[in-house]
Amino acid sequence: METAQFDALVLRLPENVLLLSGFWPMIGAAFLVFPLDGTPVCIIPDCYKAEALSALRSVQPAFFPYGLIDSPPADDVVRRLLSSLPGAANWRRIGYEASFEAIAPSWNSAESLVPAIGTISLLQSVFPNALLIDASDHLKKERRTKTAYEISHLEIASEISSIGLEAFQHAVDIGKTGVELAAEVERQVMAQGTGYRGAVRVRAYAQVTVGPEETSLGYRPNVISTTRRLQRGDIALLELGLVADGYWADRTRARVAGAPSELQQAYFETVVRSQEAAIAAIKPGIAASVVDLAARSAIQSEGYADFFPHITGHGLGFGYHESSPILGPRSQDVLEAGMLTSVEPGVYDNSFGGIRIEDDVLVTSTGSRVLGPYLKSLI
Amino acid sequence: METAQFDALVLRLPENVLLLSGFWPMIGAAFLVFPLDGTPVCIIPDCYKAEALSALRSVQPAFFPYGLIDSPPADDVVRRLLSSLPGAANWRRIGYEASFEAIAPSWNSAESLVPAIGTISLLQSVFPNALLIDASDHLKKERRTKTAYEISHLEIASEISSIGLEAFQHAVDIGKTGVELAAEVERQVMAQGTGYRGAVRVRAYAQVTVGPEETSLGYRPNVISTTRRLQRGDIALLELGLVADGYWADRTRARVAGAPSELQQAYFETVVRSQEAAIAAIKPGIAASVVDLAARSAIQSEGYADFFPHITGHGLGFGYHESSPILGPRSQDVLEAGMLTSVEPGVYDNSFGGIRIEDDVLVTSTGSRVLGPYLKSLI
Repeated sequence: METAQFDALVLRLPENVLLLSGFWPMIGAAFLVFPLDGTPVCIIPDCYKAEALSALRSVQPAFFPYGLIDSPPADDVVRRLLSSLPGAANWRRIGYEASFEAIAPSWNSAESLVPAIGTISLLQSVFPNALLIDASDHLKKERRTKTAYEISHLEIASEISSIGLEAFQHAVDIGKTGVELAAEVERQVMAQGTGYRGAVRVRAYAQVTVGPEETSLGYRPNVISTTRRLQRGDIALLELGLVADGYWADRTRARVAGAPSELQQAYFETVVRSQEAAIAAIKPGIAASVVDLAARSAIQSEGYADFFPHITGHGLGFGYHESSPILGPRSQDVLEAGMLTSVEPGVYDNSFGGIRIEDDVLVTSTGSRVLGPYLKSLI
Repeated sequence: METAQFDALVLRLPENVLLLSGFWPMIGAAFLVFPLDGTPVCIIPDCYKAEALSALRSVQPAFFPYGLIDSPPADDVVRRLLSSLPGAANWRRIGYEASFEAIAPSWNSAESLVPAIGTISLLQSVFPNALLIDASDHLKKERRTKTAYEISHLEIASEISSIGLEAFQHAVDIGKTGVELAAEVERQVMAQGTGYRGAVRVRAYAQVTVGPEETSLGYRPNVISTTRRLQRGDIALLELGLVADGYWADRTRARVAGAPSELQQAYFETVVRSQEAAIAAIKPGIAASVVDLAARSAIQSEGYADFFPHITGHGLGFGYHESSPILGPRSQDVLEAGMLTSVEPGVYDNSFGGIRIEDDVLVTSTGSRVLGPYLKSLI
């Protein structure tokens, strides 16, 4: 902050409030004020009092009445609380989340609140003598490497995601549909994952593709689960996003309904070797493109190079995807200890289908460590 | 648009792309360009080709390669496609979604893309001679009353939400936890609702509170499902948000584990009467505050006025909540045919717990109609 010459940051995206305060407000009705000098203050709807008090780390809470018929307009209260912060009248440069365009989902279906014109106007009226400056790059940089505290929470999210992989492993069967499998995975994650090592707000988002036509496109962002039924010998491919108290996991497993064919087994083993090669390559100081190459070479050497059209992995943690590091051929990123990345090679072929394996891998001081390791098997 | 003197709108929030094109892009990687003169164009990642072609209504698609290792940078492609739109060089006033701060969740866990500095810079570079103007109020006004086409889709969402209410009705039992009940409701909605009357992307978000302490606060936005177990005589309260292809439903039911007490039954009947009074009052031309008063009076006349601290309802449709109409004591809204509002009175008391009933009600030309009606019963 000193380098960037911010007098204070004013943040409202739940993912960034979590980053700098330890408290995940689920939707964006809280404001975190982080001054260069003095104690950070988080302005929070009063309904979140219990969870905020137990989660905030070195941050002073200020609660305000919220959402009832006799509550004063929230904007007025927030304006008054912001104005009365010690030293606020002297702030000249205030950082905010001007260029966050990809917003992590919440736990529930209440709309996420993002800082658009309303927030900007509010800040300008409270701080008429301050410049509002985009702090997004600084926040994204801060998010890139994870602290020990964050890693312990990301580990919980990954371990809970293994509950989902286990549910998938057991549920795949001839005659099941993609939506039935996805719904069952999500159910077990919520029912068994809530309370796991203290996790309180746990939600899985599963996408299960089924059979050659669906799984061969199982890497595209529009993929959904459908009512297609698994036939004998079909692959089922699970893409699993999971949030536990604001921390994310991103996993993938493939299974065959019935016995895998020799070709399916060969593809699968190639993908496993590719993932192992990438994980073995991960260490501080290595170029992310070199890790991608390690994964890609293992697939290329089997003659499947054209069947791996996507990147090997991406950062994650405060969202399901983060913009750094990117494990891809054109990436300029260099890995550092504390980074968390997905490692998710796959092979996809129109006639055969698709297989991918994905785990979340921490860059450690000496190499790498898979969070929440779980069995890899087609059967 | 003519009144507001926009030459074109450029939109990317999925909820607004759906509003003006019929196509729900799930996340915000599509751009909808809606000129005053000429055919609207939707610029869409190529992976969405099939669903876009079947959904777009009077809108020309332009697909671009997206998200693979050999895809050109999306921003460059979008910039080129925007520049080449017929007449674009003459646009002087371009409307965009500058002040949407509450963003509806997607179907999956991929981050929603919102128009922040990146989008603004992109538009400024493509249209250097145009003013970028906030079109949010115009879009929100357009969203307030629903077309027959939209109503048919909202009806599907509400009918699917009844699958969730039915699942809850059957699942409530002594010994079950809130997370188990919520997870089971979500599972059945996804497994049975996908494919219902053509619905493709269906997701429920359930929050189930259990017992006096939890249900007495069951109207607050931070409510979550916990691992608390239902004891004999406890109320379980289900808050259910649901999206089906971009259209939303918002329902609530309460049930008692075992037999309800006389007091529980009395509270319940009061809430039913309150909801019926509000629904009976709904018609075009009536003040929303009068509908709220109808609901509130029915509770007040039983002596429970202090136990109903929230508004009676809110608009919805392209999100779980919309800013208009608001059925509340201070609301200035006047109802119009085609509006959709939740009607959700409740009573909450620290020692007793909370009961709420919620349905989504359409304002018709002559009165009102409940979408997806479903049984109201504590038992």
